[in-house]
Amino acid sequence: MRLRAKNLNWLAGRPVVILEKETAKKLNIYVNERVEIKTKTRKIQAIVDIFSKLIKKNEIGLSHEISAILKTKNNSYVEVSPAELSESGRLIKKKLSGKSLSKEELNTIISEVVENNLTEAEIAYFISAEKIKGMSIEEIINLTKAMVKNGTKLKFNQKIIADKHCIGGIAGNRTTPIVVSICASAGLIIPKTSSRAITSASGTADVIETIAKVEFTAKQLKKIVNKAGACLAWGGSLNLAPSDDKIIQVEKILNLDVEPQLLSSIIAKKISSGSNHVLIDIPFGKGAKSETIGEAKRLGKKFHKLAKYFKLKIDVVYTNGNQPIGNGIGPVLEMLDILAVLQNKQNSPQDLKEKSLFLSSELMKLCKIKNPRQKAEEILKSGQAYEKFKQVINTQNNSEDFEKRIQKLKTARFEKIILAKKSGKITHINNREINSLCRILGTPETKSAGIYLHKHLGKIKNQKK
Amino acid sequence: MRLRAKNLNWLAGRPVVILEKETAKKLNIYVNERVEIKTKTRKIQAIVDIFSKLIKKNEIGLSHEISAILKTKNNSYVEVSPAELSESGRLIKKKLSGKSLSKEELNTIISEVVENNLTEAEIAYFISAEKIKGMSIEEIINLTKAMVKNGTKLKFNQKIIADKHCIGGIAGNRTTPIVVSICASAGLIIPKTSSRAITSASGTADVIETIAKVEFTAKQLKKIVNKAGACLAWGGSLNLAPSDDKIIQVEKILNLDVEPQLLSSIIAKKISSGSNHVLIDIPFGKGAKSETIGEAKRLGKKFHKLAKYFKLKIDVVYTNGNQPIGNGIGPVLEMLDILAVLQNKQNSPQDLKEKSLFLSSELMKLCKIKNPRQKAEEILKSGQAYEKFKQVINTQNNSEDFEKRIQKLKTARFEKIILAKKSGKITHINNREINSLCRILGTPETKSAGIYLHKHLGKIKNQKK
Repeated sequence: MRLRAKNLNWLAGRPVVILEKETAKKLNIYVNERVEIKTKTRKIQAIVDIFSKLIKKNEIGLSHEISAILKTKNNSYVEVSPAELSESGRLIKKKLSGKSLSKEELNTIISEVVENNLTEAEIAYFISAEKIKGMSIEEIINLTKAMVKNGTKLKFNQKIIADKHCIGGIAGNRTTPIVVSICASAGLIIPKTSSRAITSASGTADVIETIAKVEFTAKQLKKIVNKAGACLAWGGSLNLAPSDDKIIQVEKILNLDVEPQLLSSIIAKKISSGSNHVLIDIPFGKGAKSETIGEAKRLGKKFHKLAKYFKLKIDVVYTNGNQPIGNGIGPVLEMLDILAVLQNKQNSPQDLKEKSLFLSSELMKLCKIKNPRQKAEEILKSGQAYEKFKQVINTQNNSEDFEKRIQKLKTARFEKIILAKKSGKITHINNREINSLCRILGTPETKSAGIYLHKHLGKIKNQKK
Repeated sequence: MRLRAKNLNWLAGRPVVILEKETAKKLNIYVNERVEIKTKTRKIQAIVDIFSKLIKKNEIGLSHEISAILKTKNNSYVEVSPAELSESGRLIKKKLSGKSLSKEELNTIISEVVENNLTEAEIAYFISAEKIKGMSIEEIINLTKAMVKNGTKLKFNQKIIADKHCIGGIAGNRTTPIVVSICASAGLIIPKTSSRAITSASGTADVIETIAKVEFTAKQLKKIVNKAGACLAWGGSLNLAPSDDKIIQVEKILNLDVEPQLLSSIIAKKISSGSNHVLIDIPFGKGAKSETIGEAKRLGKKFHKLAKYFKLKIDVVYTNGNQPIGNGIGPVLEMLDILAVLQNKQNSPQDLKEKSLFLSSELMKLCKIKNPRQKAEEILKSGQAYEKFKQVINTQNNSEDFEKRIQKLKTARFEKIILAKKSGKITHINNREINSLCRILGTPETKSAGIYLHKHLGKIKNQKK
């Protein structure tokens, strides 16, 4: 059926089109069913909403998700017909019934996710199948390949490209800017991309954004890294393994952790960003994603297997995740902690400093730098790391106003100090509850909001096997 | 945040609200996240779309699904806040991880489904968990209870209320109007409600609709049954176990069959419609839902267990599902077959006649009517069944124009007879492909569309254990 396209500036979050009631009836389509829309050069499947006030007979209202892909002009004509069960639907059903998926089949699903051809419900079925039926290491490898293939890939000329990744969940755990500054000072190329907060108080991108731009195109990013040796960017705008972002959005509905997805997502993003030497930090403990060291190591082994296949040099460290790292939790408060460590201030949070030095030296060791621990300490103490951080931030902002920006950092307008009602020993700080509390206080949207912890548990020991 | 409600006449198929971009940012809400909306007396959760052209700052656009439940006046104020993971979300996550759900927990999920509080993705997670993790007979019982509780329940004064149900999938299998007419003639009360086609060529409700109204309120339905002893209504408008319709809509996305859902849905609908003597027909064979007699009997056993718990008298018959039943497939063509059988026409489809007699006598036997087979044959042959059918249709139409309506029945304007290219024996007719073909031809929306089979396989034998 030939319908006139109306481009509605409507961010529906899924590929939706709007039909008038009679037109839908003529097409024999009900709400939530799927149509195929064709232009001369493109086609896509979409879900139908019926909304007679907005759309006239023989018109079709396109959500932003659809018009962006079809590139339709307003009032141009498109061919619309009821769509059959998509190829991905058939494959997801196969996986739900317990059968394995081949490389080509996983690629079909992931490419349709990227093209916005799948509904939330279909993605939820896929996630359920992955979670309950599990995936063999071969399937995880093929899923990773599909995620890399259906996205942008960065390339750098240097031989060693270093990177680090920390499995999330630990409040305040903002080692990345310090580790990047130390390692880049030691001569490593480290094109670090980070996420914004999903369920936590803030993500590295949210923290960096308090003083710098974080959204770049691949081309801009390469320029920054070539100049400063490193970057601290948001990964979201770079289109690296973009299927992951869409799948995470559906996982988030139930706050699900799905291991095959976690593994392939991290490795795919590292491959896509051109890294080849990667340090992975798996925190364990009450309130962390891995509750015990055993769980953490089981996950670590899978990272090793996957990395071996893709010829990535990786190392995995297991760190204490029983409590938040650093004192500040929330974008501005975390940035102040980072600055205090980089400026060697006396009252800087020692746990954040120690963990950053530990991770820096492990990453340097992986990249064959000699005396890594000693070197990391020297770089930090001498102020070289601070200078490198300043350079990265100024390069990202394309200006020299670093000092002005950090002077402008403001903590929240309202403050309340909460004292313990009795003295005693703190035995546990629940990361999840600290994160929830910060979200209620307004993070990450309200940059200055958050919690400042004046007290921690005892000394932290990081493990490595 | 206090926002002005705009009632949009928008059938979104799920509980969606629309926010303007800046308002969403202030609420710290992204596309596809969930808000809670409160009026003085009601509250509901909804999914957020962002659509700045349609909705101004500090307004909230309500889909029909939301305004129907909140009963908001246009331009009235509602309180909107970000919603936490719903209670059902937590429970669905629990089931996904393999744990059983209690009676109260299943009731929470089903009541939220009925209240439109769950997204498609959440329902998909629930269906996946049911499908992959399975359900114990206790869980299926509790699911059935929850489905009955969250819906309307019909009550009739008579002691024996008869009903039949056929597991779908067999094209043309339109025995219901004949069985209802025969059994009601024999004095049984049979308040039959049926579905419209989901994936097949047509449903019983679609077929009856060619000559009669099928949408009634519970009160109207009771009046019809009290007058005619039976009805042939659409179940959808009666609000009997309404959670089922919503769950089916999400199953349909992947054409999934989920056994615990199938069992509890059928039993819940029978309990809700006040039936206590129920015949269940499970067709088996290539292209039927149960591919083998073994599979069909395994399912039948579960029906017996469930029925025993709810003190329903049931019997299960296993019928041949290797090919379509009757010649016509499509609403009008099936109605013509039904009339031919009821009018004892010589060229009436003998398979449809035989299967209807078989089911009628089994249901009569279950209801303790003596010599059921002989009686069923007499009722059909004498024209009593035809007269009963006429009475039911006239009562539903509240008029006496049955003859006029059946004279008006028209087959399609375009016809094409397809002859076999060589002679031979037909060894299989694929029900699924016949159904798909009919859908392509326009059924069930185009009532006259469909296929007429001039040839079938050999004689059919129905089994009963």
